[in-house]
Amino acid sequence: MACGEFSLIARYFDRVRTARLDVETGIGDDCALLNVPEKQTLAISTDTLVSGIHFLPDIDPRDLGYKALAVNLSDLAAMGATPAWLTLALTLPEVDEAWLAAFSDSLFEQLSYYEMQLIGGDTTRGPLSMTLGIHGLVPVGRALKRAGARPGDWIYVTGTPGDSAAGLAILQKQLQVSDAQCADYLVQRHLRPTPRVLQGQALRDRASAAIDLSDGLISDLGHILKASDCGARVELNDLPLSEQLRSVTTLEQAQRWALSGGEDYELCFTVPELNRGALDVALGHLGVPFTCIGQVMPPSEGMQFVRDGEPVTLNWKGYDHFKTA
Amino acid sequence: MACGEFSLIARYFDRVRTARLDVETGIGDDCALLNVPEKQTLAISTDTLVSGIHFLPDIDPRDLGYKALAVNLSDLAAMGATPAWLTLALTLPEVDEAWLAAFSDSLFEQLSYYEMQLIGGDTTRGPLSMTLGIHGLVPVGRALKRAGARPGDWIYVTGTPGDSAAGLAILQKQLQVSDAQCADYLVQRHLRPTPRVLQGQALRDRASAAIDLSDGLISDLGHILKASDCGARVELNDLPLSEQLRSVTTLEQAQRWALSGGEDYELCFTVPELNRGALDVALGHLGVPFTCIGQVMPPSEGMQFVRDGEPVTLNWKGYDHFKTA
Repeated sequence: MACGEFSLIARYFDRVRTARLDVETGIGDDCALLNVPEKQTLAISTDTLVSGIHFLPDIDPRDLGYKALAVNLSDLAAMGATPAWLTLALTLPEVDEAWLAAFSDSLFEQLSYYEMQLIGGDTTRGPLSMTLGIHGLVPVGRALKRAGARPGDWIYVTGTPGDSAAGLAILQKQLQVSDAQCADYLVQRHLRPTPRVLQGQALRDRASAAIDLSDGLISDLGHILKASDCGARVELNDLPLSEQLRSVTTLEQAQRWALSGGEDYELCFTVPELNRGALDVALGHLGVPFTCIGQVMPPSEGMQFVRDGEPVTLNWKGYDHFKTA
Repeated sequence: MACGEFSLIARYFDRVRTARLDVETGIGDDCALLNVPEKQTLAISTDTLVSGIHFLPDIDPRDLGYKALAVNLSDLAAMGATPAWLTLALTLPEVDEAWLAAFSDSLFEQLSYYEMQLIGGDTTRGPLSMTLGIHGLVPVGRALKRAGARPGDWIYVTGTPGDSAAGLAILQKQLQVSDAQCADYLVQRHLRPTPRVLQGQALRDRASAAIDLSDGLISDLGHILKASDCGARVELNDLPLSEQLRSVTTLEQAQRWALSGGEDYELCFTVPELNRGALDVALGHLGVPFTCIGQVMPPSEGMQFVRDGEPVTLNWKGYDHFKTA
């Protein structure tokens, strides 16, 4: 079985860099066995990445290993959970050892950084794709949900949305950028988004609702509003845009990418007026900007966009695989 | 977004037939939130099914919905765990509503039968495949593992291995069977294997090691022996073969399918001499045959096959996706 499924898994993925105390049995039995600590709730999310849809077919396997984990960590971050365990189901067209080594090295580097353990998975032959199952822990009753926003709460985002979409446009040669440093920054924001794990944890007990930006602000803020039965007013001039994004395109395109570009993996969250001081303290020392971009409104107001206080009409939608693929 | 990803998921998969008390938040947020009961260990397994490899491309979506869950349940059964939650990552080439309705109806029927809840997932466009993440619960310290077999323990299997491989041969028109009832029985054993969930639970504290038969007895018993650092002697005449299997092929082919055919999803387990009486009581009333097929030996003996006590040499291997696909 030199090139067989089992030795393939064993060789690249059966290495435990982080042996967590809550893992009773990891890879190598019919199931993994895990002991959830007392007074912790388990948070679980699953994401599939398909070649040609979620990543470019010629992506560097190191970037893929990074991003596959990052997009799943981002879901934990949006709940305020602490990362714990990962399952990886990998479908490969062939056994390419250099590819597997690069992909798995990169994945394990990130797992180690977050003190996570790979607890199981599956390797099958087929068109390149992967499904990750991520498991995190959050103290009972303190998870951030989408459904807690109330009219009057303030709407925030971390970081500078829109960078990832610009980076993708550069990779796809739809956007020419002469400044190499600037192009590199934007491409890296697309290839190596930072899941806002610490920010999510700091938002516990402070934010009333949270989500991560995978499909674009319009779509994702829309999920919070729908779950919370609220409307919102967003001030376009307050959207935090990076210098780099501003320097490579028009203000309108930059705002469009910020609102509907997708794959930023920043957090969007709502905060009651009373918690704004605590929020500044909790997020202020984490080194990532966070910006108030609007306010939650009664549901009758829908999702409104204003520029200098004047209503504007946008026809941009969030990303939807079955419509745009 | 009439045909979009979100409404597609919502329509077919966001129905809760079983609302479990341990599910705090199910589908519809960034993560599901689950509360593991005290003194229970979490068992997690992940399996991917790819069209053309794990199922025939023209499979009835009802059979696929059944089997996708069954093969994952079988992993829980092998640990003695009780099924609890499922995640489903589904990759579809197109939105075929009739297919989705049939697939999801069948899946939910099984979830309901096992009192399980679908807690999350992902739907993406791509070549047909799916990854299921199954979560079960087992009392602390009582999970069945592969590593507990000791020389002298007796080796058992449930049911009649080999039927599934014969059913597949019939579906692939490699085997002609004139008796329609007999053909139907074997095909159903392939399409609708029964995960031995109750048997697995009954084996807690009685079996010293267990595994489910997904790749064939040789391969899967081999995993127990490797994990337990033991050898084994298996008596070919004791292999339980169904009447139907015996009636459609030679004894040799029947034994070959029983040992290396794969996809039976029966349990193979080892039992210390002292526990055999308790085993008969615990499994006896569950209505599925269980048969002693051999004995665990010291590691120096390797895996031996005997016929009427005389050693025989077999060159059959278990199923390996990357070798046989």
